[in-house]
Amino acid sequence: MTIAIIGLGLIGGSVGLGLTESGFAARVLGFDRDPRTRVRALERKCVHEVIVDLSQAAHADLWVLATPPLAIPEILKRLDGLIRPTACVTDCASIKSLIVQELPSSLRSRFVGGHPMAGFQESGVEFARGNLFLDACWVLTPELATPQKTLRRIESMVYALDAKPVLMSAQEHDRHVAVLSHLPHALASVLVLLADRLDNPGIAGGSWRDLTRVAGTHPTLWAQIFSSNRTEILTAIDEVKEDLSQLEALLDQDDREALKAFFESAGKAKYRQR
Amino acid sequence: MTIAIIGLGLIGGSVGLGLTESGFAARVLGFDRDPRTRVRALERKCVHEVIVDLSQAAHADLWVLATPPLAIPEILKRLDGLIRPTACVTDCASIKSLIVQELPSSLRSRFVGGHPMAGFQESGVEFARGNLFLDACWVLTPELATPQKTLRRIESMVYALDAKPVLMSAQEHDRHVAVLSHLPHALASVLVLLADRLDNPGIAGGSWRDLTRVAGTHPTLWAQIFSSNRTEILTAIDEVKEDLSQLEALLDQDDREALKAFFESAGKAKYRQR
Repeated sequence: MTIAIIGLGLIGGSVGLGLTESGFAARVLGFDRDPRTRVRALERKCVHEVIVDLSQAAHADLWVLATPPLAIPEILKRLDGLIRPTACVTDCASIKSLIVQELPSSLRSRFVGGHPMAGFQESGVEFARGNLFLDACWVLTPELATPQKTLRRIESMVYALDAKPVLMSAQEHDRHVAVLSHLPHALASVLVLLADRLDNPGIAGGSWRDLTRVAGTHPTLWAQIFSSNRTEILTAIDEVKEDLSQLEALLDQDDREALKAFFESAGKAKYRQR
Repeated sequence: MTIAIIGLGLIGGSVGLGLTESGFAARVLGFDRDPRTRVRALERKCVHEVIVDLSQAAHADLWVLATPPLAIPEILKRLDGLIRPTACVTDCASIKSLIVQELPSSLRSRFVGGHPMAGFQESGVEFARGNLFLDACWVLTPELATPQKTLRRIESMVYALDAKPVLMSAQEHDRHVAVLSHLPHALASVLVLLADRLDNPGIAGGSWRDLTRVAGTHPTLWAQIFSSNRTEILTAIDEVKEDLSQLEALLDQDDREALKAFFESAGKAKYRQR
C-alpha cells in the first residue's frame, strides 16, 4: 500500500516510521511545508520519499493528514478531485466536528476522522518514533454513511501502529477531548499564571511539575485547538467552575466530612477510569 | 543528637532514615499510634527504638512531628512541660498558620514550623527512603521572636537531609501551598469527577494521567489539609474561577490572537518558575 502523509511533525513522522516498520506500507510519501522538516523526515527514514506538491502523491491508497487542525479543511479541498477513487483519507487532529463540517461531499464515503490519544511534550520530527502509539487509544469518528470498507482500511492502519481504535461520533469526540485534554491544558496554564503572582513559586514539589508539564506548550497550535473546539471547551469550563463553587461551599461551611466524601468520590472515579 | 519522631509514615520514616544515614542523629526514637507501623519502622531501621508514650523521649534534643496536621496542636500541648529546656521542635505539616496559632507560649522560642516540599503518591512507612528530600525545598517559618540558635538547629537538620531550607512567614507559606499544592489537588479531583460523566473516559492520553495522578488520594488527610487552610484555598479558587472567566471571554469572542497570547504568557511564567 502507498501512504501519503501530509505534515511531518511528531505525529506524521511517527505514523510514517510505524507503518514502514510494521510492513503495512510498502511506500510512504511525505509532504511538509518546511523544507528542513522534509530533509529531516527523509534522513530519519520516516518516509521513503518527500514530495513538494500534493499532486505527486495522486496514486496513494491512503492519505494521512497530520497538520495543525485549521490547515485540514483546505487540504481536504485540495484532495477532492486529486486522489484515486479507491483512496481513503484520515486525519490526526484533536478536533473533529469542524473538520467533518468542512468535508467536501465527494470525500464523505472515503474519509474517517481520527485522533491518536498519544503525544509528547516535545514536538517535531526529531522526536518521532515508530512505537509512539503503542497501546494508545485512537479515536475514529465514522459517520452513519461511512462504508465499512473505508472504516476497515483506516482501522487496519491503526492496528498496524499497535493502537486501539475507539469509535464515537465527531461530537462525542470533541466533548471527550474538551474534558480529557483541552480543559486540563487550560488549567495547567491557569495554574502557572497564578503561581507567577507568588514570591517564591520555585518551592513546589514533584506533583506540581506533573500537573503543569503541558502549560504554555505550542501556543499557536493550542490557540487553534481552543478556537476550533470552543463550544465544548466553554461547556467544560462552566462545569469546572460549578464544581469549584460546590467545593467553595464545603470550605465555607468547614464541612470536613463532606470534604472527605469529595476526595473519596474523586478516588473512586479515578479507579473506575483506569 | 537524640531525635524523637512523632508519626512514622512516609515523611517521618524518611526523616528517620535520612538522619541516621547522614550521621546527624546518634539516636532516633519513634512514636506512632499504630503498633504495626511501629514494628515496621523498627524493622526498616527508620528508628533505633520505638516508644509507646511521648514521655519516654523526654531527653530528646530535637522533636520532629510528622503526623497529620490536625493532630499537631494536641501533641504540642503534650510536649509543653515534657521536653528538655534546650530541646527544639519542628513539624512537617502542609499547613502552618493554624499550628503557630495553637502553639503553647512556652514553646515559642523553641519551635520552628517546617514543611518538606516532597512527597510520593504512596503513603506509609513502607515507602520511606533516606533520600526522599534530596534537593527538595523545605519551607521553614520562623517568627520574628525565634532565636537564631533554634532556627540554626532546625536548618542543620534540613541540610542533613540534603534539602534546601526556604524561609517565609507561616501565612506566606499557607498562601504558597494553597496555589502550588492544594489547588492543583482540588483541580485533579474535579477533573476526574468531570471525566466520570463521559461515556468513555478511558481514552485519555498520558498527560491526563500526569494531571490527575494525585486525584482522590488520602481523603482523610486532604480533608484535614483543606479544612486547615480553607481561607487561602478559597482565595485561590476565586482566582482560578476569575482566570477561567477571562478565558471564557476569549473563547466567546473566538479571539485566536488573545488565546495564543494566553498560552504564551503561561509558557513564559512556567519558564520563570524553573
